[in-house]
Amino acid sequence: MRNILVIIAVSIIFSISDGIVEAKGLDKGVGPYGEFWKPIPTQRYWAPDYFYTPPEEPKGVYSEEECVACHKALNPGLVKAWEESNHANFDKIDKIQDYQNIDSRLAPVTNPPYAPIGKLQDYQREKLAEIEKHLGKKLTAVGCIDCHGKIGAEKLDHAKELVMPSAAHCGECHKQEFEEFESEKRYGIPDWKPGRESHAKAYDANLGVDVWAAQDKNIVQGCDMCHNIQHKCDSCHTRHAFKASEARRPEACQTCHNGPDHPDIEYYRDSKHGSIYFIEGNSWNWNKQLKDANYISPTCQSCHMYYKGQYSHNMVRKAIMGEGDVLFYDNIFKGIKPTDYIKNSKELQSRREAWIEVCVQCHSQRFSRDYLDSMDKASDSIFHYVSDAYATIKSLYEEGILYPMPENRPKAPAPVTEKYPDLLGGFYGEFWAKGGNPSRIEKDFLYMWENDAFLVRKGLAHMNPNGFTYISWSNLLKKYVDIQSEASTLRRLAALEKKAKLRSKKIREKK
Amino acid sequence: MRNILVIIAVSIIFSISDGIVEAKGLDKGVGPYGEFWKPIPTQRYWAPDYFYTPPEEPKGVYSEEECVACHKALNPGLVKAWEESNHANFDKIDKIQDYQNIDSRLAPVTNPPYAPIGKLQDYQREKLAEIEKHLGKKLTAVGCIDCHGKIGAEKLDHAKELVMPSAAHCGECHKQEFEEFESEKRYGIPDWKPGRESHAKAYDANLGVDVWAAQDKNIVQGCDMCHNIQHKCDSCHTRHAFKASEARRPEACQTCHNGPDHPDIEYYRDSKHGSIYFIEGNSWNWNKQLKDANYISPTCQSCHMYYKGQYSHNMVRKAIMGEGDVLFYDNIFKGIKPTDYIKNSKELQSRREAWIEVCVQCHSQRFSRDYLDSMDKASDSIFHYVSDAYATIKSLYEEGILYPMPENRPKAPAPVTEKYPDLLGGFYGEFWAKGGNPSRIEKDFLYMWENDAFLVRKGLAHMNPNGFTYISWSNLLKKYVDIQSEASTLRRLAALEKKAKLRSKKIREKK
Amino acid sequence: MRNILVIIAVSIIFSISDGIVEAKGLDKGVGPYGEFWKPIPTQRYWAPDYFYTPPEEPKGVYSEEECVACHKALNPGLVKAWEESNHANFDKIDKIQDYQNIDSRLAPVTNPPYAPIGKLQDYQREKLAEIEKHLGKKLTAVGCIDCHGKIGAEKLDHAKELVMPSAAHCGECHKQEFEEFESEKRYGIPDWKPGRESHAKAYDANLGVDVWAAQDKNIVQGCDMCHNIQHKCDSCHTRHAFKASEARRPEACQTCHNGPDHPDIEYYRDSKHGSIYFIEGNSWNWNKQLKDANYISPTCQSCHMYYKGQYSHNMVRKAIMGEGDVLFYDNIFKGIKPTDYIKNSKELQSRREAWIEVCVQCHSQRFSRDYLDSMDKASDSIFHYVSDAYATIKSLYEEGILYPMPENRPKAPAPVTEKYPDLLGGFYGEFWAKGGNPSRIEKDFLYMWENDAFLVRKGLAHMNPNGFTYISWSNLLKKYVDIQSEASTLRRLAALEKKAKLRSKKIREKK
Repeated sequence: MRNILVIIAVSIIFSISDGIVEAKGLDKGVGPYGEFWKPIPTQRYWAPDYFYTPPEEPKGVYSEEECVACHKALNPGLVKAWEESNHANFDKIDKIQDYQNIDSRLAPVTNPPYAPIGKLQDYQREKLAEIEKHLGKKLTAVGCIDCHGKIGAEKLDHAKELVMPSAAHCGECHKQEFEEFESEKRYGIPDWKPGRESHAKAYDANLGVDVWAAQDKNIVQGCDMCHNIQHKCDSCHTRHAFKASEARRPEACQTCHNGPDHPDIEYYRDSKHGSIYFIEGNSWNWNKQLKDANYISPTCQSCHMYYKGQYSHNMVRKAIMGEGDVLFYDNIFKGIKPTDYIKNSKELQSRREAWIEVCVQCHSQRFSRDYLDSMDKASDSIFHYVSDAYATIKSLYEEGILYPMPENRPKAPAPVTEKYPDLLGGFYGEFWAKGGNPSRIEKDFLYMWENDAFLVRKGLAHMNPNGFTYISWSNLLKKYVDIQSEASTLRRLAALEKKAKLRSKKIREKK
Repeated sequence: MRNILVIIAVSIIFSISDGIVEAKGLDKGVGPYGEFWKPIPTQRYWAPDYFYTPPEEPKGVYSEEECVACHKALNPGLVKAWEESNHANFDKIDKIQDYQNIDSRLAPVTNPPYAPIGKLQDYQREKLAEIEKHLGKKLTAVGCIDCHGKIGAEKLDHAKELVMPSAAHCGECHKQEFEEFESEKRYGIPDWKPGRESHAKAYDANLGVDVWAAQDKNIVQGCDMCHNIQHKCDSCHTRHAFKASEARRPEACQTCHNGPDHPDIEYYRDSKHGSIYFIEGNSWNWNKQLKDANYISPTCQSCHMYYKGQYSHNMVRKAIMGEGDVLFYDNIFKGIKPTDYIKNSKELQSRREAWIEVCVQCHSQRFSRDYLDSMDKASDSIFHYVSDAYATIKSLYEEGILYPMPENRPKAPAPVTEKYPDLLGGFYGEFWAKGGNPSRIEKDFLYMWENDAFLVRKGLAHMNPNGFTYISWSNLLKKYVDIQSEASTLRRLAALEKKAKLRSKKIREKK
Repeated sequence: MRNILVIIAVSIIFSISDGIVEAKGLDKGVGPYGEFWKPIPTQRYWAPDYFYTPPEEPKGVYSEEECVACHKALNPGLVKAWEESNHANFDKIDKIQDYQNIDSRLAPVTNPPYAPIGKLQDYQREKLAEIEKHLGKKLTAVGCIDCHGKIGAEKLDHAKELVMPSAAHCGECHKQEFEEFESEKRYGIPDWKPGRESHAKAYDANLGVDVWAAQDKNIVQGCDMCHNIQHKCDSCHTRHAFKASEARRPEACQTCHNGPDHPDIEYYRDSKHGSIYFIEGNSWNWNKQLKDANYISPTCQSCHMYYKGQYSHNMVRKAIMGEGDVLFYDNIFKGIKPTDYIKNSKELQSRREAWIEVCVQCHSQRFSRDYLDSMDKASDSIFHYVSDAYATIKSLYEEGILYPMPENRPKAPAPVTEKYPDLLGGFYGEFWAKGGNPSRIEKDFLYMWENDAFLVRKGLAHMNPNGFTYISWSNLLKKYVDIQSEASTLRRLAALEKKAKLRSKKIREKK
């Protein structure tokens, strides 16, 4: 029954995306490019709904007590974390502390940002009552079998019934949170595929990336390890303690939101918002719900989980950018500059208003509007360089001067399809290359639109001044400069070869 | 009266710099290049003394209570921060805690680095008495109108009188701190424009940068957001809590002192000094004044605010480097190597002695001298590569082989003036580029002197071993190597074109 | 007597390595390349066993009390740190706190990870009894002369007897810890020189690096500052507090384990393991021994100091990689791909099993094996690109197209010996370059195998998804792409020059 429910749930989830799920093993891939790849064993853990099957050993049917006894010996850290959780014993709720790290005598004396202890316990008790109502029975604890088998079951056939719980499984008890999370599927980024860049569709979005399908899964499982947030509540509430207090802190986001393509934690860390958090955060009360938090500085969660007066697990309702893809890449081909693009979209205008509501909690209306306006205007300057660089590369291609020309170099592996000039500097070059495909000039351009352009905007968004000047703007210009110089060299070589009659007929004809 | 005072104060401040302030609106720029640019709306907030005018709405005259009531509804975070401050109620001083995060029972039992509670309260009360003496009246709190209007006023005409307070405004009460801060204007970096690289002249220094004046303000407002420290005490003591305990921590510096051009926080973080701070800092008492702090490891503030036995808000009296500009760039044209430059300057020698006094607080005299000597000697090795790279580019230019030659490419926008060969690899290329200006080889050289060269020295200064080897020295060499290889390619192309009679007459003549 | 002991100890240590120690001054270098360089003054502090001699001043014989009195005036921070240590007064052991930062009332109520206070005191007392047994006498404190002179001596002749204590000196009391540490010399990395990449032989390994010997010591002392861990317990237990609680935290490792060549702390920080540490770590009890720690998330120490059920100061018994050198560089020349290399080594297989034992403390056996397998398989994909890039450069060399060819460019300074083609992209280019040696294409290749290739694997090892995709894999491909495009340019230039009869005879003959 439980398995059927999961299958139904998965089918519903997946039908919203492009692919069809069949695999529950490692024989073949899933999603629109499923025929081009086969899962590796670790993917059982990255997307258990699609690939997980229980290990053959141990055979036998076990009780909760047997699970704990055996795994305490085999994997003590795993059991210990569960024992620390509220799941292990609901009596703990009555002992819940008001403060994660410190007690009230140690709090700043003035205007303490702490909810009374009773309030938090009431909240936890209410939550529990709600869950018991969904389930139609009383609970005293949540144990191994509830999550790795069926909720309420007393025994588990380890080799046959063991599951890696998905978000839907958590959602059977944590109904509201799961529904909030699932609602992301209805949002995403305008002008991207529906639901794209939503946490709740992140894994399926990944399945639709051609170069991911084409590449060695031992490498690109790195994509899975973040994109699997679609299936895993423990991306933020790590197992087996599953603390809300953990998921409320900026570090909870950093494993996925870092690096050259989205240095969110780096940009936050060095902003004034982040600096204050890193100075004071350890004395704030993380057991409080976000709505009661009123910290002196915002966290990732304060801004991104807020929407029109409420906090929820839907974090994409205000999303505007779509990484560099929509604003800085797709718009090259449409010839629309960012200010026009944003101005002309009713949806984006409404999202912008929702952002203003976030900022005005601490900043003036005029400042908030002026600042976000300047972010859009800055985007036009970014777009100018990105477009100009693309024009340079495109004209090299059209004149037959790009080297090597696409027809003279290895093709990217299927299912990547190469359609030039539109694929010049395309995303596939992020993770695949071979003998001149892509060439230096194309890879530089890819880094321009995918990283630097996006980072300038992100630096502005996160109020990190270095983030949008020395770090990203200067680097955007470095790529632009390298592209111009490389283009000069390619042109000069082609002219010399023409004169020396060293160019192959084919290319000369093309030209 | 208050407005007049501000205008007088600003005039005095500005007369020390190069420009003339007129703007109090967004019609035109200020400073030596004021005619070349117009402020954007956010600059009202980055340099309120120059550009801020109150919003048109709301109209009306309001009392303190009305300010709080309305903004509590509109911008609760802003009001909350003020309520946490000592400003909100001076009675809090008597309740001031000795420890920011923890109480004495939790402190290391041995040799506790904590001042008795009474001492801190005495200090705060003394401070208050001093302020009341300046003002000639008793204070019970500092409210909205004191800072955003006139000190002691009871009403504010919002659409006419609202101000964004500058450092000078804070200085009316915090006289000593402001005077310390202002005294930076008399120091700065030898051989740079007077007062340059002083916090207290940072904004005006910025106004004198040609490429800043030339570029889109929506981008280069990132410069303003740090350089506005000239006007803003809340760069370090963030509004509206204005805590000294915050400004005493290294994270308070990181929003400006990070990134590829001055990775101070990164270098400190990974040094032993920083590692100890990040391990233990949360248990140190940040309510103590720096002179009483005696932490087991230094912070940014411990070393940079110290001068000959005293701590103050003047942080530049020991400054030697002048970023890469003086030591590694200007000296190329003078042909003076760093050790000679430093040895020959009486002023720098005296600053070096002031640094030794910092180090010997924890290290031996011999070690301190040997280490700082080796930093200078290392600078000669850096300088060797920077000079050699410049010589390569200059000779390409002189032989007409640089590509494109300055006469064949777009000119940088006014007020940037291009004077070759001295501008090859000049600073303008950090933030502006167009069609081959600057070329790859020049941008690489810019990164050499402005980033890597400076970073090697900075890595030594902050005792971060990776910071001056793998991170910067290796990267300095990477740019050097790229420059040499690019120079070879340019020479070979020119020779081939000459032979093939493909070089334009103009260039051949030049050669 | 003490000096003789030190000399004997040093001789024993050094005889395991390649060089002969003679220097106890700054006249000449030591190690296999000792004749090529002379130490700079700071190296007295980086390798005191080899180079330290006492300062000439002050002259005189001093007692402990005189040491403290004088240095308290001269270098108060240094004395303060000692006063905070247990060394200063063993009575402190009885007052030892169970918690570094917080007390038990503040600990998480559930399943507190805290050892009873008595247990820690018992441990400290036992430790002390053991030390007293080694020394054959009672101790009440460890003072200046014990460490900077002879243990138990009451007077010190400052200008003659002062020493900078080495690990061996610490080991006279801390016998077990020193023996654990020294045991690293018997491990190291298979197929590297014996003992290489062991902390306990790090400095001597460094002495054997030709480019280190050749370069300005004022720069490459950065290598010393980490590699001197061979001689210094205070690399982790910083002086003069020497806390175990400090050395147990990840930040203790970061001063050496960061940066482009081994971003261990960066990769850990953003992994889930690290995120949990940075969220919760301040509330964990760092006074506990590692074996009793059972934190909810691992630290550097949890995994790297563990071996078959025990924790020790030998951290290399499970080491597999040997940075990029063995797996990705040496194997190019042998043509062995990483999976085969690891599979064929009994020693590496046994180390792999030791790693599995670490992972299964919290993760399932199947997951742990699958994950580490995928790390090896990913290494084959990395190796494919590294090998392909090398083949490109090698063929350029063999066809005489590399530019400049080794015979036409400056030679690296002695003792670097250039043996082409095997040295193409060799390590010397990390720290030295001159006029086209190495060329751009070689330096890119160096960064491929030394940084990016290694980082992909490290990202996997530290479970940091961005670490092995956007950060390193994409950058590996960037270098690969740059190499391919540069190779094209070099080939085209050579072909054009041939046609134009512009190639020098010598090169054409070679071809």
